[in-house]
Amino acid sequence: MPHAIFYEAFEEEEKILRKVLPKGYKYLFTWKTIQESGHKTPPAKIISTRTQSKFPIGWANKLDAIITRSTGYDHVSDYLKMTRADIDAAYLPEYAARAVAEQALIMWTALLRNLSSQRNSFNTFFRDGLTGREIRNRRITVIGVGRIGGEVVDIANGLQMKILGVDIKPRTEMKKKYGLKYVSLKQGLKNADVAICALPLTDITRGMLGYTALKAMPNGSIYINVGRGEVSPTQDLFRLLKECRLGGIGLDVFEFEKELVSVLRDGEKIATLKPAARKSVTAVLELMKDQRVILTPHNAFNTEESVERKSLRTAENLAAYLKTGKFKTPII
Amino acid sequence: MPHAIFYEAFEEEEKILRKVLPKGYKYLFTWKTIQESGHKTPPAKIISTRTQSKFPIGWANKLDAIITRSTGYDHVSDYLKMTRADIDAAYLPEYAARAVAEQALIMWTALLRNLSSQRNSFNTFFRDGLTGREIRNRRITVIGVGRIGGEVVDIANGLQMKILGVDIKPRTEMKKKYGLKYVSLKQGLKNADVAICALPLTDITRGMLGYTALKAMPNGSIYINVGRGEVSPTQDLFRLLKECRLGGIGLDVFEFEKELVSVLRDGEKIATLKPAARKSVTAVLELMKDQRVILTPHNAFNTEESVERKSLRTAENLAAYLKTGKFKTPII
Repeated sequence: MPHAIFYEAFEEEEKILRKVLPKGYKYLFTWKTIQESGHKTPPAKIISTRTQSKFPIGWANKLDAIITRSTGYDHVSDYLKMTRADIDAAYLPEYAARAVAEQALIMWTALLRNLSSQRNSFNTFFRDGLTGREIRNRRITVIGVGRIGGEVVDIANGLQMKILGVDIKPRTEMKKKYGLKYVSLKQGLKNADVAICALPLTDITRGMLGYTALKAMPNGSIYINVGRGEVSPTQDLFRLLKECRLGGIGLDVFEFEKELVSVLRDGEKIATLKPAARKSVTAVLELMKDQRVILTPHNAFNTEESVERKSLRTAENLAAYLKTGKFKTPII
Repeated sequence: MPHAIFYEAFEEEEKILRKVLPKGYKYLFTWKTIQESGHKTPPAKIISTRTQSKFPIGWANKLDAIITRSTGYDHVSDYLKMTRADIDAAYLPEYAARAVAEQALIMWTALLRNLSSQRNSFNTFFRDGLTGREIRNRRITVIGVGRIGGEVVDIANGLQMKILGVDIKPRTEMKKKYGLKYVSLKQGLKNADVAICALPLTDITRGMLGYTALKAMPNGSIYINVGRGEVSPTQDLFRLLKECRLGGIGLDVFEFEKELVSVLRDGEKIATLKPAARKSVTAVLELMKDQRVILTPHNAFNTEESVERKSLRTAENLAAYLKTGKFKTPII
């Protein structure tokens, strides 16, 4: 029996993990989620996932430990609470803030300059409808100025954009270093050519940037979500685009992401989903058809640099656990 | 008879030109080039084009003036030299350096992060092969540090990249403001994760960044051309990509651009082109199929801000000419 199995490990990640994991143990790797793997019982006492696996109830008393290779760990906490199982668990401290902020950069710059339309027009070399907006001096509002949002401010500042910040806890260092002006959400959205959501999911943020909030933005403005999908219901975003209130949307995160994956990757029928998930996934499928939209598969973290940091932190946790029975960054 | 006709005027440009051109005169607009228009004789004594129109020999003695709505004007000079016609001519001083540099930014960031693959993988939500490279701390070499290249340095500096410059005339101000280090072309290419060509076309630069020069770059590096297409033969770029020496290519300019347009927009058969043009256009058609390549239709200048500046400068030239018989920025 292997010592640990790694679910949801894509090719490049597996390669680096194999290099850095403690030697002398046996590991299994699969790109599949637990449910996609079809495993009836856990193939190892220690399992590691990202955020798309559903932990089976019946596995609770068969596991010693879970490592989620993600910064967020609600899905693990919920499982432990529900099963009341005696399982050690670990998450990874932040490892990809710059990578995520740079993914947002790629989205907002490509959308300001209509990159999709530009490329699609190459076939005919026509320029009608391709006029973009310059990035320098454009107004950008960063909603959630934590680790990721802070990096977004740093990037926008480097590009000489006009930046506003929205956060429940304004940081003096951001004011000092960037002259960042914190404003209310309403003020921030009213004055944004580009709005970046870098919020975590909490009781307050769930659904916070929906139709009512975002329609305060100027017509034609751009909305990017690299925080959590649940902050912006997808139907609302689709409606804002259809009504031409939003002129561009970039999403790397999605509400009902598990269900979305099951439809896109595994061919599950939309009709079998529960109503709320069905509406949301249907809206994503609509967004996929529009060239004013950039959708990426929860991949903002995915750079060589961050995959390496992530694998190292996973290895450190596993090594500590195998040696002492305690994780380095445990979920408590 | 109208006072002036504007060829190659796309929708947004025509709209702004109509607003700012001198009042009390009659103007014609078309998105077509002269050859696409089918005009046998000039419909006005003053004609304005961009760079894709071929001036008919027979028009030389029927024209009073030509305004090219571009910064480059070789095509006009060549025509005037060949026909020895007594035609006043004007070009536009630089109006789009920042817009062009920002187009380069969009290309190099999208290519470093495999944006095309990321978007294409959304259908399946798979992450294999999507690992990108972080932008901060990456090495970028700017070849041709003039107006556009200078803006590229400014942007790369804002993103905290490691920058080298290549130019026959190093500028002290670039060293002072950005700590820019000037190196030889060879050194610059050997140490570039990303190379940006912002060169003008001269006897020296023609073909300068071909196969032999660019194969000095590290494997998997990225090449962007927003300068002049003739600097980098397209077959060479295709070969470098096929051999995986280059990992990404972004082009907004093309050698044999007139011929490329005639094939893509007007459906001219490749077989009818002269051999050199045929090879080049064929290579572009190959590049179009590859997701490591971003091609845009000579559109880097095209922002609201620069189209407005451009239209204003066109209008100023025309107003001066109509009033005094002399252009504000004449081609001498």
